[in-house]
Amino acid sequence: MKSDLPRLMQARNLDALVVIGPDGFGPANAPFTYFIGDAHVTTGAVIVKRRGADAIETYLAHNPMEREEAAKTGLQLINKAGYRLPEIIRQKNGDRLAAEVELWRRLFADLGVGGRVAFYGADHVNTAFNFLNALIREGVCEVVTEQEDDVIGAARLTKDADEAARIRQTCRLTEAVIGATRDFLRGHRVADETLIKSDGSPLTVADVKRFIRREAVSLGLDLQDCIFAIGRDAGIPHSSGAPDAPIALGRAIVFDIFPRGPGGYYSDITRTWCLGYAPDHIRQAYELVMQAHDMAEAAFNTTDLTYTFNEAVCDLFEAHGHPTIRQNFATTCGYMHGLGHGFGLAVHEPPYMSLKGLRPDETFQPGAIVCNEPGLYYPDDPRGGWGVRVEDDYWCNLEGRFERLTEFDRALVVPM
Amino acid sequence: MKSDLPRLMQARNLDALVVIGPDGFGPANAPFTYFIGDAHVTTGAVIVKRRGADAIETYLAHNPMEREEAAKTGLQLINKAGYRLPEIIRQKNGDRLAAEVELWRRLFADLGVGGRVAFYGADHVNTAFNFLNALIREGVCEVVTEQEDDVIGAARLTKDADEAARIRQTCRLTEAVIGATRDFLRGHRVADETLIKSDGSPLTVADVKRFIRREAVSLGLDLQDCIFAIGRDAGIPHSSGAPDAPIALGRAIVFDIFPRGPGGYYSDITRTWCLGYAPDHIRQAYELVMQAHDMAEAAFNTTDLTYTFNEAVCDLFEAHGHPTIRQNFATTCGYMHGLGHGFGLAVHEPPYMSLKGLRPDETFQPGAIVCNEPGLYYPDDPRGGWGVRVEDDYWCNLEGRFERLTEFDRALVVPM
Repeated sequence: MKSDLPRLMQARNLDALVVIGPDGFGPANAPFTYFIGDAHVTTGAVIVKRRGADAIETYLAHNPMEREEAAKTGLQLINKAGYRLPEIIRQKNGDRLAAEVELWRRLFADLGVGGRVAFYGADHVNTAFNFLNALIREGVCEVVTEQEDDVIGAARLTKDADEAARIRQTCRLTEAVIGATRDFLRGHRVADETLIKSDGSPLTVADVKRFIRREAVSLGLDLQDCIFAIGRDAGIPHSSGAPDAPIALGRAIVFDIFPRGPGGYYSDITRTWCLGYAPDHIRQAYELVMQAHDMAEAAFNTTDLTYTFNEAVCDLFEAHGHPTIRQNFATTCGYMHGLGHGFGLAVHEPPYMSLKGLRPDETFQPGAIVCNEPGLYYPDDPRGGWGVRVEDDYWCNLEGRFERLTEFDRALVVPM
Repeated sequence: MKSDLPRLMQARNLDALVVIGPDGFGPANAPFTYFIGDAHVTTGAVIVKRRGADAIETYLAHNPMEREEAAKTGLQLINKAGYRLPEIIRQKNGDRLAAEVELWRRLFADLGVGGRVAFYGADHVNTAFNFLNALIREGVCEVVTEQEDDVIGAARLTKDADEAARIRQTCRLTEAVIGATRDFLRGHRVADETLIKSDGSPLTVADVKRFIRREAVSLGLDLQDCIFAIGRDAGIPHSSGAPDAPIALGRAIVFDIFPRGPGGYYSDITRTWCLGYAPDHIRQAYELVMQAHDMAEAAFNTTDLTYTFNEAVCDLFEAHGHPTIRQNFATTCGYMHGLGHGFGLAVHEPPYMSLKGLRPDETFQPGAIVCNEPGLYYPDDPRGGWGVRVEDDYWCNLEGRFERLTEFDRALVVPM
C-alpha cells in the first residue's frame, strides 16, 4: 500500500520515482492514477523524492490548463509552463527529444532529485525506449527500470482499508447491475424456449448488453466491456458474446462484469445462469466448479504459495476427468485459465494464482485483493457448447484473514 | 492511411513492424486498435511483414481464450499457446524476460521475420525498456524505434473514406447527445436565475453530466469524461467542471465532448452556451472566437504549414488586446492552447495546429482529420470568470478539400 513507499524505496536504494502520465492513456495508466486519484489530470508526471529513511515528498508536474484539477490531487504542484518548453526546443535546434531531456534535467535540479531514479507509467514502447535511453545518454540520472517486484507494483500489491472500502463499494454497485440484469431477463415472456421482446422479436445478447451498460452508467460505473455469453460462446472464456445470439432457456450464460468504480478501482464478478432450468451435465459441472470455488476460498491463507491453490483446483478437475491447462497448455476444453488474479486500479494485477512457474512465486500478503474464478468449458460438446464460471472477490485484511467482498447469490437456475 | 503501409515500410527500409498489445490498455493502445478494430482482443501482438516492395502480410499472435475474437479481425492468426511459454520459462530457469525474448525469436523464425523491425504499441515504460533492450542484447532483430514520422503514425495521420465515414457517424451521434443535453437544460424551470429540478433543488453540473453519460451510452458511444464547465471553471480550458456548481442563466457554459464511437474512432466537439441571455462581454468574446473559427476554416489548405493557421488566430486575438500563449507561454488568461489537433483512434494525434516550433513542421495531407477550436478564457474576470470555445471537426478529403463533419448549430444563447 502507499504507506509502504518510503520503506520500499529505502530497501531498493532509490532516490526518486518518476511516474509519467502522457496524454491519451487515462485509466489505463494505473501507476499514474495511483497518485492522482479521481482528479481529471490527463497529462503530467508524478515525482516522488525520498527524504531520508522513512519520508517522501510527492510532486505533480502539470499542464497549466489543468492547474485546478491538479490541485485536487493534494500533491505539491509544479506548473510545467514555467520551464518554457518552446524556448528549450529552440535552444536545442528543434530536437524535441533533447529538449524534453533538458526539461527533466532542470526539473530534477529544482527538486534536488538525482541518483537512482526508477521510471514507471504507460507510454508507447518506442517513445519510452527513446526517452529513457536519452536520459541515460545525457547522464540526467541513473535510470532504474525494475519490473518484477518493482516499487510501485509492490505498493499496489496490497490495499489499505480505504482502498478495500472503495473496492467493496464497487462490488456493491456491480452486484446492483447483476441483480437488475437478472430481473430484466425474468421480465421477458418466453416462447419456444426463447425470451421475447415486446416487439415480438427474440431478446439478444446485444439487447442485454445495452441494458447492462445503461444500468452501469446510471450507478456511476465505467464499463468498457463485459462478457455476456451464451451456449458455445460461454465455452470460450474470453468470448464477449455474439451480439445477435438469442437468449434461450436451459443454456449456460456466463456473465462476467468488471467495471471501474469510485476512485478508479475495479471489481470483477462472474455468475453462470441457466434460465428456467439447467440440463444435468451443466448442473454437474456447476456443482464441481462450486466445489473448487469453495475449496479455494476455504484454503486461502498467507503462507502457501499462490499457485498451490490453483494446483489443488487442477487436481480436483483432473480427478473428475476434465482436461486442464496444467496437462496441456494449449487445451481448448476443460479448465484453461488460472484460478484468480489480483485487481485494483487495473482489472488484472498481481497476485496471480496461475500455473506453477508461469509467474514469480509469491504468497498472499495482508492487504491483497484477489478473485477466485474456477471454470469449466466445453465449446464443442455435441449436446451444445457450454461453459461455467463463478467468480467472487476477496480482501486479505490487515490481520491476514480473507474477507469475501461479493455477496450476490450464486444460484445457477434463474426461475422464469 | 493503412493502404500506405507497404510504401511507408519500403521508404524506411523496414522488414517488419510489431505492435504489442499487453493486457490492460484497451482503446488507449491506439496502434493495436488500428489493426484489430472492433474485435474484443484484450492481449496479443500484431506482426506486419513486408513482402517485397508493395505488399505486406499481417498476423495476430493471440491468447487461445480469445481465438474467436481474434478471428473477427480478419488477420492471419497465430495461437501463442503453441509456443508453450511455461516450458520456455523452465528452460530459461525461471527468467521470464529471457523466456519472452525466446518466444519472440521462435515466432519470428516461424514467420520468416528478421532484419529491421520497428516496435509500436502501449506498455509500461520500464517493461518496454527492458523488453526492447533484451531483444537487442539477444540479437533477435535490429530494433527500430522511430518516433517522429514513424510508420504507424504516418499511416494514421491520414484517414481513408471508410475511417472518415466512421468519424462522421460518431459526430452525428455526438451531436444527438449535445442536442438532447440542450433540450434537457431547456426543460427545467428557472428561479432566481438558476435552473431548478423537480425536487426543488438547483440543477448541478453533476446532474447534467449524469444525463450526458446516459445519453451517450444509449447511443452506443463510449464516454470516459467530458467537460461541462460553467463560469470560472469554463475559464480554465481543461477544468472538467465542479460537480456541485449550479446551472445559472447568463453565464458561459463550455461543453466539450469527445466520445469514442463505432470502430473506436473519436469525435471532438465544443459548444459554448449562455442560458437565457448573454452578457455583452461574453457575446463580444464569442463573436471574436467565431471570427477566428471562421477565418481558420476558410483558410485551411494543404500547402501552408499547420502552425500558420494558429499564428493567424494569435494575430487576431492580440490585435484585439487579448494575451496569447505566443506572447507568454505561461499565460492563464486570453488564448492559451493550440488552434486544433488531429484525432481518430486517439482524441489527440497529429496533425497539430500549435505554436510555431512546438511540433514538427507539417502541412495537412489529403485524409487529415482535424478540429478547429479557438477560445478565450478569463477565469479571474472581476465580473465573474468565463471562457468561450467553439470546436468543429473536418476531414481533408482525398481531393484535398476540407469537409466540415460537424453540423450542430453554434448559437451562443439558449432561449429558456
